[in-house]
Amino acid sequence: MHQHVSLITLGVADVAESRRFYVDGLGWSPVLDLEGEITFFQVGHGLVLGIWDLAKLGADAGRPATAGTPFTLASNLDSEAAVDAAVERARAAGATVLKEPQRADFGGYHAYVADPDGHRWEIAHNPGLTVDADGSVHFGEPASGSNP
Amino acid sequence: MHQHVSLITLGVADVAESRRFYVDGLGWSPVLDLEGEITFFQVGHGLVLGIWDLAKLGADAGRPATAGTPFTLASNLDSEAAVDAAVERARAAGATVLKEPQRADFGGYHAYVADPDGHRWEIAHNPGLTVDADGSVHFGEPASGSNP
Repeated sequence: MHQHVSLITLGVADVAESRRFYVDGLGWSPVLDLEGEITFFQVGHGLVLGIWDLAKLGADAGRPATAGTPFTLASNLDSEAAVDAAVERARAAGATVLKEPQRADFGGYHAYVADPDGHRWEIAHNPGLTVDADGSVHFGEPASGSNP
Repeated sequence: MHQHVSLITLGVADVAESRRFYVDGLGWSPVLDLEGEITFFQVGHGLVLGIWDLAKLGADAGRPATAGTPFTLASNLDSEAAVDAAVERARAAGATVLKEPQRADFGGYHAYVADPDGHRWEIAHNPGLTVDADGSVHFGEPASGSNP
């Protein structure tokens, strides 16, 4: 287990419904789209997110997958206005808004939404988390980097 | 919800125990380490993975987080030998090996392990998934790119 994530695969109850949310609702572009079976999106530099049937996800790993919400994916944006706009876009696409945009304890601004399977996304503006051109991440006061 | 993931935060039962697994067991280097509270690792270009108390994760989002195994994180490596070595390292660190290294349906070679909270990692060699220097991901036959 190297310190590197290449793919994130979300187990979903209905791949077609999840695909409708991400593609038709949010306007995401698949990088590989086996409609109804599995759909992959590029969600970062060398990073892929897939949506796949929860039962198949478990079967592939040799242990049943179970539903739950034990993790959060976060998308950091450049401004508070971008957070507001992203939350409205998600709401219009059918996401459940768990927490309306507001000040965050970490010093920025954030909201939480859930996709049709309850997978939780934090939408945030975090001036204290910067990324250099080479992809190096820094926590703390913003310096020369840009918000990821 | 832009098509971009900046952070992945795993909810865990005991942050100190999870930290021991990732830091002491696997040898990962934190990028921000508030010991016992939250620990962040850089796990890709501009990408951070955090371990945080499951109850706090839910409270921050305004809805209780629930345990479960509804997703997989995958780490793609350069060779089958690297997969074998990574699985042995994970096993020695206390991971549960869910699926020993073997041929994968996608044409490569893979294994599955689970961390102390059951969070599932696929450790894979996948010649059909390549990443360009600019971070663009490609599925299909390997071309000029390198394995992510």
